Amino acid sequence: MQAVLSDGKVVVAGSEAETEADILAKGYGRKKGKIELSLEEAAFLLETGKIRIKDEAGKELNLDGFLEHALDVSPKFALRYLIYSDLKERGYAVQPGGVDFWLYPRGAKPGEKPARHFIRIFSESDFLSLNDLAALLISARNMRKEPIIAVVDEESDITYYEVQEAKFESVEPEKDRGGSKKRKAKTSLLGDRVVLWDADLAESLYRNDFYGKLTKEKRLLLSLVEAAYLMKKGLLEIEVREQKSENRSRESDLEKAQSLKPQTSNHKPVNFERFVEYANAIETDFMDKYVVYEDLREKGLVVKTGFKFGSHFRVYKTKQQKHSSYLIHVLPEEHVFSMQELSRAVRLAHGVKKRMIFAQIQTLGKFDQNASRTLRKFGQNIRYVDIGRMKL
Amino acid sequence: MQAVLSDGKVVVAGSEAETEADILAKGYGRKKGKIELSLEEAAFLLETGKIRIKDEAGKELNLDGFLEHALDVSPKFALRYLIYSDLKERGYAVQPGGVDFWLYPRGAKPGEKPARHFIRIFSESDFLSLNDLAALLISARNMRKEPIIAVVDEESDITYYEVQEAKFESVEPEKDRGGSKKRKAKTSLLGDRVVLWDADLAESLYRNDFYGKLTKEKRLLLSLVEAAYLMKKGLLEIEVREQKSENRSRESDLEKAQSLKPQTSNHKPVNFERFVEYANAIETDFMDKYVVYEDLREKGLVVKTGFKFGSHFRVYKTKQQKHSSYLIHVLPEEHVFSMQELSRAVRLAHGVKKRMIFAQIQTLGKFDQNASRTLRKFGQNIRYVDIGRMKL
Repeated sequence: MQAVLSDGKVVVAGSEAETEADILAKGYGRKKGKIELSLEEAAFLLETGKIRIKDEAGKELNLDGFLEHALDVSPKFALRYLIYSDLKERGYAVQPGGVDFWLYPRGAKPGEKPARHFIRIFSESDFLSLNDLAALLISARNMRKEPIIAVVDEESDITYYEVQEAKFESVEPEKDRGGSKKRKAKTSLLGDRVVLWDADLAESLYRNDFYGKLTKEKRLLLSLVEAAYLMKKGLLEIEVREQKSENRSRESDLEKAQSLKPQTSNHKPVNFERFVEYANAIETDFMDKYVVYEDLREKGLVVKTGFKFGSHFRVYKTKQQKHSSYLIHVLPEEHVFSMQELSRAVRLAHGVKKRMIFAQIQTLGKFDQNASRTLRKFGQNIRYVDIGRMKL
Repeated sequence: MQAVLSDGKVVVAGSEAETEADILAKGYGRKKGKIELSLEEAAFLLETGKIRIKDEAGKELNLDGFLEHALDVSPKFALRYLIYSDLKERGYAVQPGGVDFWLYPRGAKPGEKPARHFIRIFSESDFLSLNDLAALLISARNMRKEPIIAVVDEESDITYYEVQEAKFESVEPEKDRGGSKKRKAKTSLLGDRVVLWDADLAESLYRNDFYGKLTKEKRLLLSLVEAAYLMKKGLLEIEVREQKSENRSRESDLEKAQSLKPQTSNHKPVNFERFVEYANAIETDFMDKYVVYEDLREKGLVVKTGFKFGSHFRVYKTKQQKHSSYLIHVLPEEHVFSMQELSRAVRLAHGVKKRMIFAQIQTLGKFDQNASRTLRKFGQNIRYVDIGRMKL
């Protein structure tokens, strides 16, 4: 088969109906008068010895020469070609398009069936912002295709990731316990955690609703997000001392010693807003973590820290579940991933059989109909982006 | 046993020689005239019912009241106490000190044997800079102790990490192949990778020295760091076209079409510095990655991409090794870790039986005697920080 490279396009020379039908039947090229091949198709056919390509001057091009021309037209051609070849060798039909590639189900030919996925290509050293991921999900929805991210590493190996809007399956949406049964628990604020001293309530919150950590002495140690949420549900009351330790440091030793005398009078129960202010001062990004925590709890999910898995939260679908199903990492709207960061998070989640989900706090987004009151109040929305390794 | 909390200090009341000897024998307190307990020791003895504590006014304090006082003196007291109790329950002797805690070998008492470790405590929501880690290693060396980082998560569980200067075991330091045998290979630069076309050299570099990826057609695909290193060793020559594609985009379509004509005259072999410039323009932080790559290769280690493990490099001690031993992630000098980031990296490395090592590029550091010429030339030094999970 002969083709000519001209003006950055590869056109199959001659037009015996048989050759044309054959090329098209094998899933290569598009008929536009003559048959035009994409640069990836041409390089692939050239490398496998199925085509000979001449330039406009009639000089035959070897792969080296052809690649050089292709790189002039498409600076990312090396990546594109590596991915194209990989997919062809796995038996897929692939078509270049505005979204890097369209991917057709294995065995199907372009035109016979619609593409199911589209592929965006990256190099290991590229960066990808959370906003780009969000945009990817929006175009996927509009095109009714599923997005794939293909990353070519420095060894020219390719890893495929599927990206989707996270769907949380949960069975029991959180029920409000009703005002009459509520009993406000006495707590102490210990810096970045809260102790609940009532042994019965501590056990009930721990065993029935999986809050906090129960100590041997039947006290419940709560994190700031847990405490804020329980406070909002009217289940506990938190007292903050009026006197702040920041001011304390400027006092003399004598004053310090005096202030250690019991001063029960300066304990005041604070409201939710004041507590959030306090927590925000202790923990950077407390508010971001809190809105995600609240949103997930309101969906009926059980949420605990995901620290041991390198994420903010681990999430159980039901209260009966032994192992958590999701890892959630909360990120600011403008976060930019390195490819290594994505790879590390997804591989870790995969290794412990969980889905890796990034929660993007959107400050100016349109509100989800189901957004919690806290989210609406603070003018926020959450987008959950689920990324997983894909075996093609 | 009775004690008095006064001026932020807990002093054991009365001084029967027997009680004193007993307390000291159990590893609590220090004798300064009377026996003084640290706040953690006092809280631990109070919680386990072994002591009663009164304030200066003679009022007995319960744990709640005592904790409140302790928090006034030490704002991180909740974290300190959780870690102290955890270590005591595991049978260790612990002493508070300028470095949070000194940890003694299990069963040993302070004073009998020197402390082996010192502990720095953090909360899950804290941040830790690479410079802090470097400083930790320096003080550890000066004190001849091993540093431990203890992180209390939101569930009040504690994870211990050991931190050390990475020691690379390598058997075969890289030999220079000698100028006479050198054969400069012909290569093509394809954007962010380099193709070596000579099948014999490709196979030799791949099979003997583990560079790049060998294609079915016996071409070697090299990454930019590999190509730069081989170029520096005089093993390959890279030609860069004079005409840059950035300028190209401003040309008219006609000019574009014309430039696709073969123009072999404008290929010029570039020197190392010019190639590094080119690579730096394509890959952010190329130079950082390169200096670490060169340093590790010069140590005789085999270095490949660590992308699938979420790090820049995976490193083999020898050429015979089947699985890599280290993951290396290169970071800028001023990098600040979130605790989740550390946890994620260390857990992933642990799961695949490798050591997690962060390479800090220090631009103003004193030079290591063994620093490579490239490092010295660019006024840089590399510190390798090895962090691993520690089972106490």
